[in-house]
Amino acid sequence: MATDRRRLHDDEIAAALAVLVGWQVVDGRLHREFVFANFIAAIDFIDRVAIHAEALNHHPNWSNVYKRVSVELWTHDLGGISALDLELAHKMNQVAEGV
Amino acid sequence: MATDRRRLHDDEIAAALAVLVGWQVVDGRLHREFVFANFIAAIDFIDRVAIHAEALNHHPNWSNVYKRVSVELWTHDLGGISALDLELAHKMNQVAEGV
Repeated sequence: MATDRRRLHDDEIAAALAVLVGWQVVDGRLHREFVFANFIAAIDFIDRVAIHAEALNHHPNWSNVYKRVSVELWTHDLGGISALDLELAHKMNQVAEGV
Repeated sequence: MATDRRRLHDDEIAAALAVLVGWQVVDGRLHREFVFANFIAAIDFIDRVAIHAEALNHHPNWSNVYKRVSVELWTHDLGGISALDLELAHKMNQVAEGV
């Protein structure tokens, strides 16, 4: 997948969201709330995603309460959503399916 | 330390905060922002605290952006701060010092 930091156009984002289950754009940011079986599963998700985020050098804005992990992705430098955000969102979905 | 879920009085909380470095009460909740060396250290902190939170069966409301972890603690059932919140806050400080 692309890893460039160019700010994406709205139509590019819309096309990506069509195949990115659970994500939507809220206030110009990619957003998804993940719900797991319990707290430990939620923390396990954070751990696994963290490895990918660090490898991409692209870090989420996320919060956790018990079994829920709420995520916002955007590229601060660009003031918008980049291909890197889409890539990390896709990776999160893959990790969540495997938890 | 005490682990009861009784809602604490303001003077009890004030006394505890006097020795609980970095924490303050914001909107009726215990709050602290931890800042670490980098993203991995922040995630490591979350991991280590999670073990204690699960053992206490008392889970934080927390968020992470890069090297920052912002925490809110309160006891939902009581609509206030309990001894369990103070215990978890104290444990977080100990973990943060060890990271």
